Amino acid sequence: MTESADAKGSTVRVKTRDGSYPVLVGSGLLAQLPSLLREHVVAQRFAFISDDRVSRLHAQGVMEACRGSGLDASLFTFSAGEPSKTRGSWSTLTDELLEAGFGRDTCVVAVGGGVTTDLAGFVAATFLRGVPVVQVPTSYLAMIDASVGGKTGVDVDAGKNLVGAFHAPRLVVADPNVLSSLPREERAQGLVEAFKHGAILDEAYFRQLEDNVAALLDADVPAAYAAVLRSVELKAAVVAEDEFEEGYRQILNFGHTLGHALEAASDYALGHGRAVALGMLLEAEVGERLGITEAGTRQQLASALGGLVATVSQSVDADVAVRYLRADKKARAGRLRVVLLRRLGEVDPGQGWSHEVPEQLLSEVLGSGP
Amino acid sequence: MTESADAKGSTVRVKTRDGSYPVLVGSGLLAQLPSLLREHVVAQRFAFISDDRVSRLHAQGVMEACRGSGLDASLFTFSAGEPSKTRGSWSTLTDELLEAGFGRDTCVVAVGGGVTTDLAGFVAATFLRGVPVVQVPTSYLAMIDASVGGKTGVDVDAGKNLVGAFHAPRLVVADPNVLSSLPREERAQGLVEAFKHGAILDEAYFRQLEDNVAALLDADVPAAYAAVLRSVELKAAVVAEDEFEEGYRQILNFGHTLGHALEAASDYALGHGRAVALGMLLEAEVGERLGITEAGTRQQLASALGGLVATVSQSVDADVAVRYLRADKKARAGRLRVVLLRRLGEVDPGQGWSHEVPEQLLSEVLGSGP
Repeated sequence: MTESADAKGSTVRVKTRDGSYPVLVGSGLLAQLPSLLREHVVAQRFAFISDDRVSRLHAQGVMEACRGSGLDASLFTFSAGEPSKTRGSWSTLTDELLEAGFGRDTCVVAVGGGVTTDLAGFVAATFLRGVPVVQVPTSYLAMIDASVGGKTGVDVDAGKNLVGAFHAPRLVVADPNVLSSLPREERAQGLVEAFKHGAILDEAYFRQLEDNVAALLDADVPAAYAAVLRSVELKAAVVAEDEFEEGYRQILNFGHTLGHALEAASDYALGHGRAVALGMLLEAEVGERLGITEAGTRQQLASALGGLVATVSQSVDADVAVRYLRADKKARAGRLRVVLLRRLGEVDPGQGWSHEVPEQLLSEVLGSGP
Repeated sequence: MTESADAKGSTVRVKTRDGSYPVLVGSGLLAQLPSLLREHVVAQRFAFISDDRVSRLHAQGVMEACRGSGLDASLFTFSAGEPSKTRGSWSTLTDELLEAGFGRDTCVVAVGGGVTTDLAGFVAATFLRGVPVVQVPTSYLAMIDASVGGKTGVDVDAGKNLVGAFHAPRLVVADPNVLSSLPREERAQGLVEAFKHGAILDEAYFRQLEDNVAALLDADVPAAYAAVLRSVELKAAVVAEDEFEEGYRQILNFGHTLGHALEAASDYALGHGRAVALGMLLEAEVGERLGITEAGTRQQLASALGGLVATVSQSVDADVAVRYLRADKKARAGRLRVVLLRRLGEVDPGQGWSHEVPEQLLSEVLGSGP
């Protein structure tokens, strides 16, 4: 799947219903964005979308470089942070593009973390019934997860990511150099998803991450490059198999059933990565109690993730988390399904890549704490 | 393309990127909706969406029939009329479905005219990143145009249908019996699009519509059945060729460049069908002046459409319409493109199925009145 690897980086192609798109991973790629856009995208105008923090750090600069190279480029920004990932921000950005006269010959360029790639991706998916989007992720989370696979969307009162669309990008450009500008806490939270990729698909990768956790947290470029590339390869293989999450792609939800309930119960104070880390430990516990997951797996996960999100605190009310699980259950016609590991690096196929688990057991495990 | 035609009706299959979907046209099909849903859709729950007018006439009844047959069905309504086709209504309907616990195993069933098929289709396209939609059109416009081809969306301040998605339906059920409940004025406006299909693709069909205009306006079932079926066949062939309007599908925009400008200039008082009828006459005039459209075509269109929307009045300020055209031009990187007929029943291929026309000529023709 990785086509080429040279001094400039590597290309992973992600297969889609309509063809494929390249994910370029390489140090220094951001500076090459003008020529990469010319090479990969047919569009008359480029609408850069970024949050006000990443705009100052990167997006304004690359937009101006594109303009300097003769491209018709403009920048649209929104307030940094998850609270901006709403239908309101989506409407405002859409109206700003329309007001500025952008038409069907537009390409949206999303520069930022997961909030930006999801939000700008949804703007692109619905602007004049869909225009191309180029994803330029600037966080670990966005590079290894959010920008690959075509999921776009926003949060609503009833929950996160409940409104959106599948809209495959035309191109993804991941430059590990930019990770040094990311707050250390966000690096830690984002790397949890890399450990998840290892836990479900590749034990050797999991061990490699564990061994390099300090360098990864420091945004060491060779370490980050290797991790982003391997995670992109693993995720690309999964979404090529099941682009629209009708089956196999659900394995990427490992740690997320309980993780989401904990995150919601903390009123999102816990943070996504931290919540998923906790969710992985607890779902491993569920699997061990059911005799599906190899004994000791929870302990191995805890030991590896401890170096990453050491301060996982039990500040979440388990009873509240159980209420969120119940709401989730109601929405899924009375069934609670969880992805369970067979062992580190391998998911148990279950029925359709997940298992129906009694609510009672999930409540018990949630109540037992980390 | 028409697979079968018997006492119960005909099936037209519309080819899509992912396969195809059936459009069923037949008298009395609405009463068969429970069994049709079982046959064509895999879903646990059915969310009917309709406006408050069509709900009383049809949607409440068919939803209850579905429930009576054992399906899990609920009805969600919004205020009838184009002003409801907004992001606000889309948000409210989405939140109501989420509140009622609808999950990924949902099928949306849109029962109504073009506003409903577009709005409910967009709800389905974006609900949990997309769930299936069944279109049950109840107006001429929705049967022959809006429900076939997968376009969904809403209006925004900057213009109509500027936000949306392509989301092919799972099934379309068109029952001409319901047309008798449609106000006569709406029948007239909707039939304009049928004449457009004839004008661009099938002169014999155009003549047939002209000959049967009185019966069609009376919602005579055999006449309506024949027209809906032929229009669906013609539209299905076009969208099968170019699902995402990258080229050939633009021929369906005949009459719409000038029509939209007139409609907007009238602050939407003119009505879509009336505006498109006027747009077809004026675009024929443009084509005749350029020597592309056979002389006399405008006159033939005027004579046929006169029986339909006889009261086309010149209540629109041509200068205002020109301003809308200019705004449109700005949004399309300075080009104004119009679909031009070669003669009745045939589009001139131009460059990519449309012609670049000088604004001066369009202004002149708009100013010259109908």
